[in-house]
Amino acid sequence: MAVNLTEPESLLAIKGVRLASIYAGIKKAQTDDLVLIELAKNSQCAAVFTQNKFCAAPVTLAKKHLHETVPRFLLINSGNANAGTGDQGMLDALESCELVAKQAGCNATEVLPFSTGVIGENLPVNKIGAALPSLFDQLSENKWINAGRGIMTTDTKLKGVSRQVELQGKTVTVTGLSKGAGMIQPNMATMLSYVATDAAINKDLLQQCLNSAVQLSFNSITVDSDTSTNDACVLIATGLAGNEIISKDSSDEYQKLLKVVTEVCLYLAQAIVRDAEGATKFVTLQVNSASSINDARQVAYTVAHSPLVKTALFASDPNWGRILAAVGRAGVYLNIDEIQIYLNDVCIVSAGGRDPAYTEEQGQKVMNQQEITIRIELHAGDKSACIWTSDLSYDYVKINSEYRS
Amino acid sequence: MAVNLTEPESLLAIKGVRLASIYAGIKKAQTDDLVLIELAKNSQCAAVFTQNKFCAAPVTLAKKHLHETVPRFLLINSGNANAGTGDQGMLDALESCELVAKQAGCNATEVLPFSTGVIGENLPVNKIGAALPSLFDQLSENKWINAGRGIMTTDTKLKGVSRQVELQGKTVTVTGLSKGAGMIQPNMATMLSYVATDAAINKDLLQQCLNSAVQLSFNSITVDSDTSTNDACVLIATGLAGNEIISKDSSDEYQKLLKVVTEVCLYLAQAIVRDAEGATKFVTLQVNSASSINDARQVAYTVAHSPLVKTALFASDPNWGRILAAVGRAGVYLNIDEIQIYLNDVCIVSAGGRDPAYTEEQGQKVMNQQEITIRIELHAGDKSACIWTSDLSYDYVKINSEYRS
Repeated sequence: MAVNLTEPESLLAIKGVRLASIYAGIKKAQTDDLVLIELAKNSQCAAVFTQNKFCAAPVTLAKKHLHETVPRFLLINSGNANAGTGDQGMLDALESCELVAKQAGCNATEVLPFSTGVIGENLPVNKIGAALPSLFDQLSENKWINAGRGIMTTDTKLKGVSRQVELQGKTVTVTGLSKGAGMIQPNMATMLSYVATDAAINKDLLQQCLNSAVQLSFNSITVDSDTSTNDACVLIATGLAGNEIISKDSSDEYQKLLKVVTEVCLYLAQAIVRDAEGATKFVTLQVNSASSINDARQVAYTVAHSPLVKTALFASDPNWGRILAAVGRAGVYLNIDEIQIYLNDVCIVSAGGRDPAYTEEQGQKVMNQQEITIRIELHAGDKSACIWTSDLSYDYVKINSEYRS
Repeated sequence: MAVNLTEPESLLAIKGVRLASIYAGIKKAQTDDLVLIELAKNSQCAAVFTQNKFCAAPVTLAKKHLHETVPRFLLINSGNANAGTGDQGMLDALESCELVAKQAGCNATEVLPFSTGVIGENLPVNKIGAALPSLFDQLSENKWINAGRGIMTTDTKLKGVSRQVELQGKTVTVTGLSKGAGMIQPNMATMLSYVATDAAINKDLLQQCLNSAVQLSFNSITVDSDTSTNDACVLIATGLAGNEIISKDSSDEYQKLLKVVTEVCLYLAQAIVRDAEGATKFVTLQVNSASSINDARQVAYTVAHSPLVKTALFASDPNWGRILAAVGRAGVYLNIDEIQIYLNDVCIVSAGGRDPAYTEEQGQKVMNQQEITIRIELHAGDKSACIWTSDLSYDYVKINSEYRS
């Protein structure tokens, strides 16, 4: 069902990052559900987490551990979110970290826990403990694909990408994974995403790099307006590429690295939308000439969240009235007579109504495509925003009404 | 498909209000699509309209006419919204009023136009003109049911109700109609609703009465978060019941009338939710002990709009984790440890997680019902809000992906 999304056949290894994946018995389906990522000593690690007030136990604990020290391991399970599990959830998350620490001979605070899956069920820590020895045995720099599969839940496709860039004559690699298909309107982070590079960069700048990249990627997508309790995005830098440590955001090296990290995050974020639950369309909302970025984003999200626009997209129906109605209720100042709305390059709305030159055939031709850009020109300023979303299909309802049964 | 909604067999006439309904050829389906409501001289009329910035031509014109004088006729067509139609839309709306005025021998400003249906197609004014003579012939005080049918679009059931109250020994009657099933998150008004009473009341107080009633009824429902371009709610008072003119909002008579008008509006608003496109559940969101009404409403609407909560409701799945996740992203201050969530009287969430005493069987028993109350206790203050919504089913997608085809 995914829209123009191809699984990567291979991903580039990152010096200093080893991964492993196994079936521990957490998921009902017998596919990998436990992933371990080992970071070389002296790596740096940045992260952003969900803004949902009911954040899951592993999110709370991962934030705490990250605040205290630099992680050596990330432990990620799929099939169980360990969210809404109260005090027991915190104990379970902590015990998972302790089990990894014991096996590795490190401190529990050097382990970051992540969970994704059903909310409100206790984490089967005994199963995790039983699987850890084999998991450690399998650690390898060449297991990115396996790790990508191990974090999947309702995803139909593995999501991963690699990019390279030259910094001071050294080749720096960035490889990332993500998972997520529903409960997607990330707010500071997506469902789960892990991006690593062998670049050398200081910790503050690594966090700044992640924040910038996330804003234009994971924080610019929506499937169903629901923000998960478990969203997290991690950016690792092992520093083994041989470049001098990047320490100024004005440096060419920082700008080059930021560009390639943003590209990786954008690819992964768009991959989540392409694989959105039930998606048959990949839709770009481009809002231009707004008086503020905030206004532009608000108009874009209002259109992207409208069930009537989303069902029209599913039906390939050029129902521009629904787009216009959604723009009209976005809650921002609008100069109705000047607004233009385009489907790809076809102007459908101008001067408050159907564009005089528009024909239904033109709109239909665009709507029949799998990738559609809705461009809205507000003519109120010079700010823009771009977000990506999917349509609302029978299969979205099917997947989400049968998820737990 | 409507949830526990019975069509009224009859509605009480209102002295001074005559109605007629006819098939003018605007809809494809050969069901009535043109309604005329005549108000006796000296009637008062209050109205609230959509807040959508792209409001339809008839909304703009009805506001203007209402500002200039007291209406004698309401002309309502279904099947065509005359929205997004630019200057031609305004000319068409005005010409419709002029045709009625000519037939009736009154001024065009004494006619209020209303349209509902597909956005973006020009209104066939010639068909309206051709139908007007027969429409005038049929005017009668006993045509409320016919008028109710004439304003329907995707509605599966006629929505109407009558109530009576004694004011100063005189029996006062209130009768109302409404239509609407999708594009429903009214903001100051619903799709279309017409309520009339024979009570005598001054104009300012009539508007105040309507505003109060609408806030607790039409402005407290949502089907799909979409606000129509054509929403309007009209309250007519003919003054023929024989009571002294109500002129103080502190009077017993005003309070009694407000109560019964609110009851009628609430019945009609809930009827819209019961007949929501594809609805299989009627859901009450009751948010209590909030620090402000605004916070309470925001939490209620966030849960009500969550596609994941709505699909779980469709599946009769007591997936309390999705409700909790929606509360967590509502954007209001939350004291996570104190929040409680109930399905009817079953406590499902307390202290940030699943209530210790909760069993899946209890939740399933509630979810199997057609009418469900989700009650959220925020323990942050003493303010409350109540809103009503429906679930998200295959049929919602079906209806809205096939609407124009």
